[in-house]
Amino acid sequence: MPDIAPQPQPPAFPPAEYEARIARTRARMEERGIEVLLVTDPANMNYLTGYDGWSFYVPQLVAVPLDAPPVWIGRGIDANGARATTSLAVTDIHGYADDVLHWPGRHPMDAVAEVLRGRGWGARTFGLEMDSYYLSPRGFAALQAGLPDARFADGDLLVNWVRAIKSPAEIAMMDRAARILEAVMATAIEAVAPGVRQCDAVAAIAAAQVRGTGDFGGDYPSIVPMLPSGPGTSTPHLTWSDAPFKTGEATIMELAGCHRRYHCPMARTVFLGTPPPRLADAAAVVVEGLNAALDAAKPGVTCEEVEGAWRRTIAKSGLVKESRIGYSTGLNYPPDWGEHTMSLRPGDRSVLQADMTFHCIPGIWMDDWGIEISECFHVTEQGARPFASVERGLIVKP
Amino acid sequence: MPDIAPQPQPPAFPPAEYEARIARTRARMEERGIEVLLVTDPANMNYLTGYDGWSFYVPQLVAVPLDAPPVWIGRGIDANGARATTSLAVTDIHGYADDVLHWPGRHPMDAVAEVLRGRGWGARTFGLEMDSYYLSPRGFAALQAGLPDARFADGDLLVNWVRAIKSPAEIAMMDRAARILEAVMATAIEAVAPGVRQCDAVAAIAAAQVRGTGDFGGDYPSIVPMLPSGPGTSTPHLTWSDAPFKTGEATIMELAGCHRRYHCPMARTVFLGTPPPRLADAAAVVVEGLNAALDAAKPGVTCEEVEGAWRRTIAKSGLVKESRIGYSTGLNYPPDWGEHTMSLRPGDRSVLQADMTFHCIPGIWMDDWGIEISECFHVTEQGARPFASVERGLIVKP
Repeated sequence: MPDIAPQPQPPAFPPAEYEARIARTRARMEERGIEVLLVTDPANMNYLTGYDGWSFYVPQLVAVPLDAPPVWIGRGIDANGARATTSLAVTDIHGYADDVLHWPGRHPMDAVAEVLRGRGWGARTFGLEMDSYYLSPRGFAALQAGLPDARFADGDLLVNWVRAIKSPAEIAMMDRAARILEAVMATAIEAVAPGVRQCDAVAAIAAAQVRGTGDFGGDYPSIVPMLPSGPGTSTPHLTWSDAPFKTGEATIMELAGCHRRYHCPMARTVFLGTPPPRLADAAAVVVEGLNAALDAAKPGVTCEEVEGAWRRTIAKSGLVKESRIGYSTGLNYPPDWGEHTMSLRPGDRSVLQADMTFHCIPGIWMDDWGIEISECFHVTEQGARPFASVERGLIVKP
Repeated sequence: MPDIAPQPQPPAFPPAEYEARIARTRARMEERGIEVLLVTDPANMNYLTGYDGWSFYVPQLVAVPLDAPPVWIGRGIDANGARATTSLAVTDIHGYADDVLHWPGRHPMDAVAEVLRGRGWGARTFGLEMDSYYLSPRGFAALQAGLPDARFADGDLLVNWVRAIKSPAEIAMMDRAARILEAVMATAIEAVAPGVRQCDAVAAIAAAQVRGTGDFGGDYPSIVPMLPSGPGTSTPHLTWSDAPFKTGEATIMELAGCHRRYHCPMARTVFLGTPPPRLADAAAVVVEGLNAALDAAKPGVTCEEVEGAWRRTIAKSGLVKESRIGYSTGLNYPPDWGEHTMSLRPGDRSVLQADMTFHCIPGIWMDDWGIEISECFHVTEQGARPFASVERGLIVKP
C-alpha cells in the first residue's frame, strides 16, 4: 500500500485551514476537560479532515486527541475513501472488518474501542457527540464496554460551535452555493405549472441542484426538495408526489444550492392563478417581517433581538408564529443543513458576530394553508448580506 | 381543527395492510415483553402508519402500545404532516412546542415523555430502537429521566424483521421502483462519457430518479448516486465531483429507483475505452459469482449458503472479497436502503423465505481500482427473480 494516498477528491481547503480548525477545537476541548474528542457528526468529520463520502450510514468517527494528529476510524471498505479525500497519514486511517456490522451481539464500536485502546488512550477522557444522528445508544454502550478505564464527557455541538464563524474560504463556498441556488430557484419557478406532475418539476429542480453552474458543480443538499402543495402547505416537511399542480393552489418550495457540502437554502411560495387575499396579505406581512429581521441582524445583536424585529413587525397583522424563525447554517450532511447551535427565537441570547451565517425562514403554517419566504444571510460589519438574489415575495403565475 | 385530517398525500396501502403490520409487530412485542414500542426509525414509522415527511432530522416517533392504536409524537409544525399522510385519529397525533428543540438543557424527548405519561403509560415497559439513527444517547437519557417509573427493553430491529417478508402490494411497489431504475441506468450509461463533468451526468441521473416513468413518479432514494470514478473506484462510497470523466477510466455507479419509499438498487461499472484485462477478467468473475449466488437463492436456503455459492465460484480467480455480498432491502429513508437484518455472508444462518428481497452486491475494491455489478432480487418459490433488467456485465463504451 503506498504511503501517499491517492487523492481523486482532495480536501476543499488548504492544510492551514484544517490546522486552524483543529486548533480551535482543541482549545474548546481543553476548556471542557476532554482529552480525545470522538467526532461522529459527518459535517464535523469533514470540517476537521475533509473526509467526504456517503458512509455515515455505518458507525465511523474522527478521534481528535490533544497531543497527536486526528485519526479516522470507519468501515474497512471506506478506508480508501478516507485516503482519497483527506490528508491524514495512512497510518492514521483504520478500517474495521465487516463482521462487526449488523451482527447480533457485535457492534462496530467494539472495533473502534479496540483501536483507541491500541493507541494507548484507554484511560483518557473522551468527549462524545451525545445528540448527533450517527452515535446511537447501542454504540455508546459498546464504547463504554470497550473502554472500561475511560471517562466520558459530553462533547455535543463542540465542533458545531467552532463552525459558527466562517472563514473567507467558507464564505466563498457559500457564495458558490448561492449561485447554484439562483439557478435552482429559476428552474423551480419555471417548472411549477398547472398540470405538471410534482415529480417532473422536482426532476428539473434536482438536476439543477446537481449540475451547478458552468464554473463549478453542485453537490447533494442535506435535505431533498421540500415541496408541499395545495392543502399540504399547512406543514413544511412534505416532499413531492406524482400528482399534478393545480390552478388555484399554492406550492411551498424549500430548496438549497450546495457546493462541496456548503449550503445556501431558501424558501419561496408560488401561487398558480390569482391568490386569495389572505395569502397575498400574509406574503406582504412575511416579507415586511423578514426585511425587519434582516435589517436588525448585525454583529453585537443577539439572536432573540433579530427575532424580536420580526415579531414586532407582524404583531399588528394577526398572524401567529410559534416556532423559531431561523438557525445557523453552512457545511452539512443529511438529514439537516442546520447547525443545531443558534436559533433566531426568544430566549436565544447568542450574539451575532461577523461571518456567522443564518437561514432566516419565518414560515407560517395554518390549518389548511401556509407560506414560506426566506433568506440565507451572511453577517457582515455592514449588516446582513443575503447570499442569493431571488425576488422576495409571493411568486404569482397567473 | 377538523376531526377528519386532510390527506393530500394519503398512505400508500389500504388500512388492512397497516393493521396486519401492527398485529405482527405486537406479536413480536409480546414475545419480548414490550408493552409500548417506541418506533424512531422513519422507515418503521412509515411501515406502521404511512407517515412520510423529511422531518426525521428532529426527534419524533410512533408509540405502539399493545392495547391501543399507535400514537404519533413529533414536532408541532409536523403534526399537520402526520394528518396529511397517515390515517391516525387527530387525537393520536401530538406535536411538541419548538422551545424544546436545539436548546441547552432541554430535549424534545422531555416532551415525548410527558405525552407518554399523559397516556397513563408511565410505568410500562418500553421497547427502544437502540441502534437506530434517529435515537441519540441524549434522547435516550431524556426518556429515562422523564419516565422514572418505566422499564426499557431493546426493541432494536423488531419492526425491521417484520418488514423482511414483503406483501404482494410491497412487491408491486418494488417492481415499480425497478421500472424507474431501468430508466435511471439507461440514462446513467448514456451520460457517463469522456469530457462530461461528473456533476452533469449525475444531474441527468438524479432527474431520472425523481421523474420516474410516465405512469408513476419517482421518490428520493435513501442514498444519493454513488459514482466513484478512476482511482476513486478503489472505495465504494464516494459521490461525484465536477471533474470530467476520462477515457481509460472506470466509473462505478450504485443507483436506485425509488417509489413511495420502496427501493430497487443496482450497481454497474462503466469503462470508457478499452478496459485493461484485469478489469475485464474481474467483471467476468464477478458476473459468474453473482449468477451462482442468484441461482442458489431460494426459500429454505440460508444467507450464508447464498454467499457460499459466490465464494466457491470466485475462489479459483484469485480475487478476494472480505465484506458481505448483500443485504435485505425494500422500504427505507436516508441514510440507508438496507434493512440491517439479514446479510449474505458467512455465519448468517437466516433462512430465505418467499417474498424476502435482497440486494446482492459483490463489490471488489483493490488498492487503486474496483468493480461492482449487482442485482436486487425477489425470493420466489421458483428461485431468485431479479427485479430489474439491465445488461449484467462490465459496460464498455469504446
